[in-house]
Amino acid sequence: MAELVGNCLIGQSGGPTTVINASVAGVVSEALNHTCIEEVYGSLNGVIGLLNEDFVDLAAESQQAIRGLRQTPGAALGTSRAKLKKPQEFERVLAVFKAHNIRFYFHIGDADSQETAAKISELAAAQDYDLRVIGIPKAVENDLPATDHCPGYGSAIKFIGATVKEMSLDADSMGQGDLVTIIEVMGRNTGWLAAGGSLAKRRDHPNDPPHLVYLPEVPFTNEKFLDDVRRVLKREKHCVIVAGEGLVDKDGNYVAVESGAAEAQVGGVGEFMKDLVESQLGAKARVARLGVAQRCAAHLASKTDADEAFLVGQAAVKAAVNGETDKLVTLVRGDGENYTCETGLSALSDVVGNLKKLPPEWVNEDGVSLNFQFFRYAMPLIQGEVVVPYENGLPSYVRLSRESVDKTLPAFEA
Amino acid sequence: MAELVGNCLIGQSGGPTTVINASVAGVVSEALNHTCIEEVYGSLNGVIGLLNEDFVDLAAESQQAIRGLRQTPGAALGTSRAKLKKPQEFERVLAVFKAHNIRFYFHIGDADSQETAAKISELAAAQDYDLRVIGIPKAVENDLPATDHCPGYGSAIKFIGATVKEMSLDADSMGQGDLVTIIEVMGRNTGWLAAGGSLAKRRDHPNDPPHLVYLPEVPFTNEKFLDDVRRVLKREKHCVIVAGEGLVDKDGNYVAVESGAAEAQVGGVGEFMKDLVESQLGAKARVARLGVAQRCAAHLASKTDADEAFLVGQAAVKAAVNGETDKLVTLVRGDGENYTCETGLSALSDVVGNLKKLPPEWVNEDGVSLNFQFFRYAMPLIQGEVVVPYENGLPSYVRLSRESVDKTLPAFEA
Repeated sequence: MAELVGNCLIGQSGGPTTVINASVAGVVSEALNHTCIEEVYGSLNGVIGLLNEDFVDLAAESQQAIRGLRQTPGAALGTSRAKLKKPQEFERVLAVFKAHNIRFYFHIGDADSQETAAKISELAAAQDYDLRVIGIPKAVENDLPATDHCPGYGSAIKFIGATVKEMSLDADSMGQGDLVTIIEVMGRNTGWLAAGGSLAKRRDHPNDPPHLVYLPEVPFTNEKFLDDVRRVLKREKHCVIVAGEGLVDKDGNYVAVESGAAEAQVGGVGEFMKDLVESQLGAKARVARLGVAQRCAAHLASKTDADEAFLVGQAAVKAAVNGETDKLVTLVRGDGENYTCETGLSALSDVVGNLKKLPPEWVNEDGVSLNFQFFRYAMPLIQGEVVVPYENGLPSYVRLSRESVDKTLPAFEA
Repeated sequence: MAELVGNCLIGQSGGPTTVINASVAGVVSEALNHTCIEEVYGSLNGVIGLLNEDFVDLAAESQQAIRGLRQTPGAALGTSRAKLKKPQEFERVLAVFKAHNIRFYFHIGDADSQETAAKISELAAAQDYDLRVIGIPKAVENDLPATDHCPGYGSAIKFIGATVKEMSLDADSMGQGDLVTIIEVMGRNTGWLAAGGSLAKRRDHPNDPPHLVYLPEVPFTNEKFLDDVRRVLKREKHCVIVAGEGLVDKDGNYVAVESGAAEAQVGGVGEFMKDLVESQLGAKARVARLGVAQRCAAHLASKTDADEAFLVGQAAVKAAVNGETDKLVTLVRGDGENYTCETGLSALSDVVGNLKKLPPEWVNEDGVSLNFQFFRYAMPLIQGEVVVPYENGLPSYVRLSRESVDKTLPAFEA
């Protein structure tokens, strides 16, 4: 096989994670090791940049900036929730790739967005355009199949776990009977993030807060909920609840939905619970909704997570240079007693359209707590702290200089 | 004056702060330096412990535990929002003090709760019982008069500033037109905490997020709000808002109120704004409500704040031993170019019933941003990071062993 020589391109897609930029840093650092990769470009705002030929020259960024990406939240290249759908959009992307001699494309995204990578790969093959497409996983919600876990998840549950622990100390000290503290976390379809709240419990202290964890995988009923809270308030003097935003009833309908301008959006489950508790139990409840904070709290990132996010970026480049295409880099956990993790590859088609739910056998029979299997799984992912530089009392993050690559094609007419 | 010899007692009152325990550590450490102080007791759950004679022996705690208090959130002795009102309650407290030869009482609390300290002091004087009562300030909302700032505030705005900065990077990278990010923070009566969100701006970048800061000191109207958001969305591609929970309209009525079981409670201003933005501007909005997290995020405490919280604890003991009573320890900022801070004393009567509002001249004419006077005031308060030990990936906090002091009186009949 003749060596493929050309330029590489990186795109970020979907909601950012605390460590999504560490994967960009991994790709850039590794790309510079391979002479077959000539230019290293980034696409601005993911697929939007692909369509509009909006590329920046990542090799022109300072080394400090690339190193700083390892601890900077948000998507440094910009991201987008847009999906390519029309055939002419994919045609356009291929035309753009050809115009810039893009031969290596790295797509950082969740299960849903890897479909774009798969389709680009497919079209390139159909057109006999030699292109290596490698997906890089990221998902704060940890719902990509094929990989043991997703970069972004460990940092999110480290922040959630610490916050639940701190809020529980606060609640416990209030000395107020019947105080219910509700912490609403993300998770439209899965309970991975809510489950992470239970890391706040001390080992062998099952009655530690959070006392109740509500997962989208376990159908929600008002009666069971009120019984649960009643039971905890009787046993403890207060009750700490972690609730995934995507709770559903036994028919699969969201318990709390906000109707936005653009689209129906889950959320508000904390307020929903507060109303129930106050109206039905006469207890006082207070709600915190961590919102986007949980996917960008780089001041408390997991070092394991940040290192693995960098690693999957490096591995993507190595795979592409070695002739792989149409693959997703995965994280593969070792079998040993001590946690180890290396990268693997999976077909992109394995992940598209699939969601990995929390295994039901990890949830205790009470439906509101996790057993040792979850702790064994999740504990290694939150280990270690990323050291962030501080400037004027706040974490200091980098911004890329984003030197534009000249456009060569006429503007795309949607 | 004959030296007063006896036992000392510490009580915590009102909502905890990130550094309220650092003040306990300051009192305990300093108390052990003075032979006129024999026993060092803590009252469990503030005034509740005073009534019920529920004391613990703080000198029996390990040194590690007392040192660990300097970085442990929540109120380690328990706290309470209860207020003593009836004359027989104050009589009881005095009887309890006499029974335990309490001669030095340290009351850690906000403006409202210092009234209790003042009344105890008054009754002791009326009964010719030699008692030194010193108030120690704490207020995440920074609304105590007489002191330059309150322990607890610096750590709260360090967390809020960092979170706003991180969420802004996330929002900025979404590449989605008309995305409005609303971060609801505490502040029932004052905008000190909301103003702290503006620390996320880089120096000399007035257009940095947060783009709009809404303060309870500035009357809120829907029209002005929608105009503000429209203006920012036109200029930037998105809009980051920090909103104090206690916003009021021009008649002084809260904009958003939740009716709880026990009492009306402000809150929900984020959801209120979201509804306005989505219904009136057709933009997409998302809300984070930091809730109690902002007053207990010890993983990101300000070292300046934690050190000052310890200092006011020490200063309280020194003052009491020196014969002062009926006083509040204050923080006094130096006049020099570089920030310095020492402690002072103010009469308890100066603070009771007074709230310190954000000075109107620190708010720009647009009503939604702060000028250099606020930054000059607030920046020194967030400097430095408290190093927290980690265990199993999460911050490790101490719990007191709470060795009970024997009760000597019959139970109190309320």
